[in-house]
Amino acid sequence: MKKPAWVIDKERARRAAAAETVWLFGLHAVRDALLNPARERLRLVVTKNAADRLAEAIAEARISPEIVDPRRFPAPLDPSSVHQGAAMEVKSLDWGPLEDLCAAGPDACVVLLDRVSDPHNVGAILRSAEVFGARAVIAPARHSAPETGALAKTASGALERQPYLRVTNLSEAMTRLQAMGYLLMGLEGTAELSLAEGVVQAAGRPLGLVLGAEGPGLREKTRTTCDALVRIPAAGAFGSLNVSNAAAVALYAAASARN
Amino acid sequence: MKKPAWVIDKERARRAAAAETVWLFGLHAVRDALLNPARERLRLVVTKNAADRLAEAIAEARISPEIVDPRRFPAPLDPSSVHQGAAMEVKSLDWGPLEDLCAAGPDACVVLLDRVSDPHNVGAILRSAEVFGARAVIAPARHSAPETGALAKTASGALERQPYLRVTNLSEAMTRLQAMGYLLMGLEGTAELSLAEGVVQAAGRPLGLVLGAEGPGLREKTRTTCDALVRIPAAGAFGSLNVSNAAAVALYAAASARN
Repeated sequence: MKKPAWVIDKERARRAAAAETVWLFGLHAVRDALLNPARERLRLVVTKNAADRLAEAIAEARISPEIVDPRRFPAPLDPSSVHQGAAMEVKSLDWGPLEDLCAAGPDACVVLLDRVSDPHNVGAILRSAEVFGARAVIAPARHSAPETGALAKTASGALERQPYLRVTNLSEAMTRLQAMGYLLMGLEGTAELSLAEGVVQAAGRPLGLVLGAEGPGLREKTRTTCDALVRIPAAGAFGSLNVSNAAAVALYAAASARN
Repeated sequence: MKKPAWVIDKERARRAAAAETVWLFGLHAVRDALLNPARERLRLVVTKNAADRLAEAIAEARISPEIVDPRRFPAPLDPSSVHQGAAMEVKSLDWGPLEDLCAAGPDACVVLLDRVSDPHNVGAILRSAEVFGARAVIAPARHSAPETGALAKTASGALERQPYLRVTNLSEAMTRLQAMGYLLMGLEGTAELSLAEGVVQAAGRPLGLVLGAEGPGLREKTRTTCDALVRIPAAGAFGSLNVSNAAAVALYAAASARN
């Protein structure tokens, strides 16, 4: 029997509403989110032990925790999630419009990710973006790692501080950055220009580093929208960098050429 | 009731023997190991479908696969392992003695990992080490990520090609490298010297890059054995790099200063 339309609509609305909230887990991720004044917190679920360990942060956040039995931890987490007795339902952070977040300056740098879907890679990239002072990490809303507890855990606090902006259309966001003066440099293994040469040429201009997923790389539309393509020089013919490692190298090279 | 000594001994021997073999899994990792002439292969377990997809590599390796029912996949893998119908029991690769593997030369570079235990990080570091032409990744046998299927999968083929040498005593291996002419540079966030300055000073000498685990960092003995400590400059006060990202940045910086 087919479901009636109103049931399908209701289910869809429930899924959409659920998608707007994220369950963070683990002592570190929950503490970071408790201490972030910009984070809208909905529900904090903790064991007695975790509540003790998070006591200061809970007081700071002025939230009433639900103290739960560790054997019946009620948060809807993946069973493989190492929650350490702490989980919190939160809203995604609102980083505001691209134009404000990425206001151009001679040393502005942003990272654009074309369909990087692995949350561990995106988490690591947020860490590197924060360390090297990138204004934002920008990714398409679809086919990218969503803001999840797993991503937050890998980001090791950076999710609370480093803007992760998900846009409807990546190439449209690229065009907007170009209109703001950004030079967009795509990483591609077969490019003629080396990363080091590219970042020297880009010195003095706001810079966007564009990385694709491992395997497919940059999509055609993304590649053709870039102003330049650069490669990270390899010693031999075999192997390739993990995408988060490539991003870290590119951010380091850009930061080195701009200071 | 306590187990008799002979039972304990027998169990220990069985564990030690088991520890010498590794179950690789996933089409890519199994294909890479089939095509590696240096890899000692013990048992190949594949579904009919996987056998078809690996047909060329299986013929090349001259191994008789056990064709199994996908619903009763008999390889002793972690249930979360995405094996794609292919698993192979192999011996760890024998990379030979440190002195041969790391024979000094003006552009020789090795990576030393002090208790980096996450297999995903070590796998990504093997990939970066291969891309930037490091002679070896060296880690203590204990408290480091062992050569496992999960590591092989993250290493994306690099485990077959990039030496991963596990030594009994890391600081003793460091002393041996120093006797061979290596300059050992430890990464530490509080170091005064920047990575860029450090690699310029090291130009013309074989170089060892030493990284600790996230959190504990370099152990005291490891730190004091280093010839120099360097930091990766950060834009702000918050955040830190994932260890594999720090290794990629250090390898890139070293390669850039040496070419």
